[in-house]
Amino acid sequence: MFETAELGREVPKAEYKKQVPLLREKLLAVQQDLRKADFPVILVFAGVDGAGKGEIVNLLSEWMDPRWLVTHAYTEPSQEEAERPEYWRYWRDLPPRGRIGIFLSSWYSTPVLDRVNNRISIPEFDEKLDRIIAFERALAVDGALILKFWMHLGKSEQKKRLKSLEKDPEKKWRVTETDWHHWRLYDDFVAGAERAIMRTSKGAAPWDIIEGGDLRYSSLTVANAVLDGIQKHLRKRTKLKEVAAQLKAAAKSGQSSAGEEAENTEDYWNKPVPRPDMPTIISTLNMDQSLSKDDYQSELNRYQAKLNHLHRESWGHKVSSLIVFEGWDAGGKGGAIRRCTAALDARRYEVIPFAAPTDEERAHHYLWRFWRNLGRAGRVTFFDRSWYGRVLVERIEDFAREEEWMRAFAEINDFEAQLVEHGIVLCKFWLNITPEEQLERFKSRQEIAYKRWKLTEEDWRNRDKWAEYEIAVHDMIERTSTSRAPWTLVEGNDKRFARIKVLKTLCEHMEKALKRLQKN
Amino acid sequence: MFETAELGREVPKAEYKKQVPLLREKLLAVQQDLRKADFPVILVFAGVDGAGKGEIVNLLSEWMDPRWLVTHAYTEPSQEEAERPEYWRYWRDLPPRGRIGIFLSSWYSTPVLDRVNNRISIPEFDEKLDRIIAFERALAVDGALILKFWMHLGKSEQKKRLKSLEKDPEKKWRVTETDWHHWRLYDDFVAGAERAIMRTSKGAAPWDIIEGGDLRYSSLTVANAVLDGIQKHLRKRTKLKEVAAQLKAAAKSGQSSAGEEAENTEDYWNKPVPRPDMPTIISTLNMDQSLSKDDYQSELNRYQAKLNHLHRESWGHKVSSLIVFEGWDAGGKGGAIRRCTAALDARRYEVIPFAAPTDEERAHHYLWRFWRNLGRAGRVTFFDRSWYGRVLVERIEDFAREEEWMRAFAEINDFEAQLVEHGIVLCKFWLNITPEEQLERFKSRQEIAYKRWKLTEEDWRNRDKWAEYEIAVHDMIERTSTSRAPWTLVEGNDKRFARIKVLKTLCEHMEKALKRLQKN
Repeated sequence: MFETAELGREVPKAEYKKQVPLLREKLLAVQQDLRKADFPVILVFAGVDGAGKGEIVNLLSEWMDPRWLVTHAYTEPSQEEAERPEYWRYWRDLPPRGRIGIFLSSWYSTPVLDRVNNRISIPEFDEKLDRIIAFERALAVDGALILKFWMHLGKSEQKKRLKSLEKDPEKKWRVTETDWHHWRLYDDFVAGAERAIMRTSKGAAPWDIIEGGDLRYSSLTVANAVLDGIQKHLRKRTKLKEVAAQLKAAAKSGQSSAGEEAENTEDYWNKPVPRPDMPTIISTLNMDQSLSKDDYQSELNRYQAKLNHLHRESWGHKVSSLIVFEGWDAGGKGGAIRRCTAALDARRYEVIPFAAPTDEERAHHYLWRFWRNLGRAGRVTFFDRSWYGRVLVERIEDFAREEEWMRAFAEINDFEAQLVEHGIVLCKFWLNITPEEQLERFKSRQEIAYKRWKLTEEDWRNRDKWAEYEIAVHDMIERTSTSRAPWTLVEGNDKRFARIKVLKTLCEHMEKALKRLQKN
Repeated sequence: MFETAELGREVPKAEYKKQVPLLREKLLAVQQDLRKADFPVILVFAGVDGAGKGEIVNLLSEWMDPRWLVTHAYTEPSQEEAERPEYWRYWRDLPPRGRIGIFLSSWYSTPVLDRVNNRISIPEFDEKLDRIIAFERALAVDGALILKFWMHLGKSEQKKRLKSLEKDPEKKWRVTETDWHHWRLYDDFVAGAERAIMRTSKGAAPWDIIEGGDLRYSSLTVANAVLDGIQKHLRKRTKLKEVAAQLKAAAKSGQSSAGEEAENTEDYWNKPVPRPDMPTIISTLNMDQSLSKDDYQSELNRYQAKLNHLHRESWGHKVSSLIVFEGWDAGGKGGAIRRCTAALDARRYEVIPFAAPTDEERAHHYLWRFWRNLGRAGRVTFFDRSWYGRVLVERIEDFAREEEWMRAFAEINDFEAQLVEHGIVLCKFWLNITPEEQLERFKSRQEIAYKRWKLTEEDWRNRDKWAEYEIAVHDMIERTSTSRAPWTLVEGNDKRFARIKVLKTLCEHMEKALKRLQKN
């Protein structure tokens, strides 16, 4: 795989001096075009020590306008980073649309080094690579341009490079014992790298192998690839938008071919319609369940005391919980959340309501705002609505295109897997009520002054789309209720019954997590 | 001071049970009004251990809607927090407009405990209290409602409370050796608290001393104070807006009294006009200074090498630098920044351009977005424009009212003092050019394709206001060039001269900071 990167290619100094100013001009110009574009650029650098990763990144930063470009390099996770899933810091640092992020020692670093040092087996390595593929894919399909550069150096070349750095008193500091340790592992390193490159070089996020022997050659090659990549992607995105607009216009005016084409690609999921012959999972719930006032009070006391106790224990063990509430308008989310928080110490929980994204959030992948809100270790975080908006309101209201909400199921499962793997207790509640019960609640909200704010025009509009939403909920549960992150459907016509079911389920989840901890 | 909080006031259970539901209704209603308001609510809780701070905060959170309310409590700074000035974490956690933030063990905690334990002297204590006053004042004048509750308990009461907690097996865990240690220091603690309360109880952020013996009494008292405080503040802000609108309308229609009044309050700073008899500091600069190409090249090499070396050393010592660039449009900020970054490792610097704030930023105090962008230890951060926008563009364009930009000078000095005290190397550059030179540069930007983006309609408009800006710059330098954070005025007609002056100054500042470190 790397033979082509050991050809000893070089660029003469005169040629380099001629090319750089032209290249810089083009890079600066393309950065300006990019600023107005609807996608971010992610440049990943990895490779052999001494192959010039750092130097090339410095040159790129020098040639481009550093105001629209940030470089991130990662070492050991800081305390705040370690308290979240591994990818939290990468999500945090992703560039917004219109900007460039350069990533050094990024998500490839730990898996490759863990493999080289035999800390993980090949199947474990592959699992980590699969996570990378899913991560990059999620970004790429959202529009991001991802270019990855593997800087290569032959084994003897590497030795020479390290030796020559060591001789230069100005550069000596850069060669550490770790570098020599890596050099001794060269063959293992290259084998691991090969596997990583083969598996993660996808159309949406390809690897470019760059010969790293001559900095003039490698820097020009990389810079030209970046320039070319951004230019092509700009054209592609413009083209895509044109086609989408044409299709939309054609569909609107009821025109022939384009409209037909759109119809032909319609499939089972495309335009959700009520399917009376196929009961939805919601329709199978026994919505008559209820709890007497007395039973409620004693159960409430019991489970709130239990929750308080469990959370104190979780706090000690630094186990975080994330409780997701979805449900019909007026389904009782707020009330259920308050029954939980009443049992907790206000310093150790947070309730985060999600409505329309802010403009900073809009400039990122839709999952970004949920990643950024993950709490620190030991805390309980309640999400009032969540990433499931993607497959509910965004699907129904056409805020997300079909392919966008379709692929969201897989993206969400992957996201939740990361939470669970990190040890976070994840509970997902669907608070269900019947349309009749909702109408009652809307009416009573209109009557009670301090509850009137809760009822908006939108609630009435959503109500008209009940059947569409019911199918969306059905699909959501079918596709995202996994063994690691199951949904709990809560029969909510009786608020008392619903609240106790939520509290009880939350306690069960936390208890299970703590027991699992003790076993290990 | 605390005698009035040792009266043994209690609320009977029946009375409490009657009052709580009414109070809750009102609290929920006022939270809804608050959501649309243009200010945040900051509730600070402090006081004697065992006086029920935590319990009251939990009750408040239970009574209110937890979605628009967050509680923050602080312990030892985390690694990421310790790498920034002390107040960074408080700024980070401030609620946006329309929401409530509850702060426990907040900015009062360390100063009071340090004083009680004799780790700081009284003058040092007062200095810390002055910082608190400045912090709260900055928030309050920006509109924030700040209510502070000091929970009190007599010395024997405190002992009783701790003892009774210790007897309850469910609550025993809450009493730690620290609590008893604090109890033994009771008299010192109360003396320190008294001083803190006296000095920091300002009209804009008053303290309320709450008797903490009976939780029913104290929680009702606090909740009523919060309710009353928010209601009053809502009315006050509405009134203020009305008056402002009336004044504006009256002034516009050239009407008598209101217009006159506005005119009477006009003072020296109000409407900046060119003052030809008073040369501005800018007009005294020798703008003819220049550097030959050869000298430039050798100086550039020299200072870039030096900067690289100094930054490696700073990195090792975890000394951060923050370089602020302000200047005329086309003054050469971008070029100067690039000459600095070219000498640095891309992984260890960041360039942050500040244009219009995002909507998240707009929901906070104007300094918030600069606090949030402070870099971690050892890094160099370049701000392309900065908080000085408040006294430049916002002043000239009337984005900030007169009293807002007037008080910004003091707020900025306080902010910068905190940066410097934390050990951050702070450099502030004003890149100066003459109007003639600017015109030349605008013209050449129009001609060069890849520079055309740099020239906007706004640049021409700003140019028309040169005289106004010149006075604003003069005032800015007069009022914010302090011995700890001096401005460097850069004669920028000759780009080579300007760039070298910037590089050289930056090197000097870093060198000085490193020398100071070695001395200590």
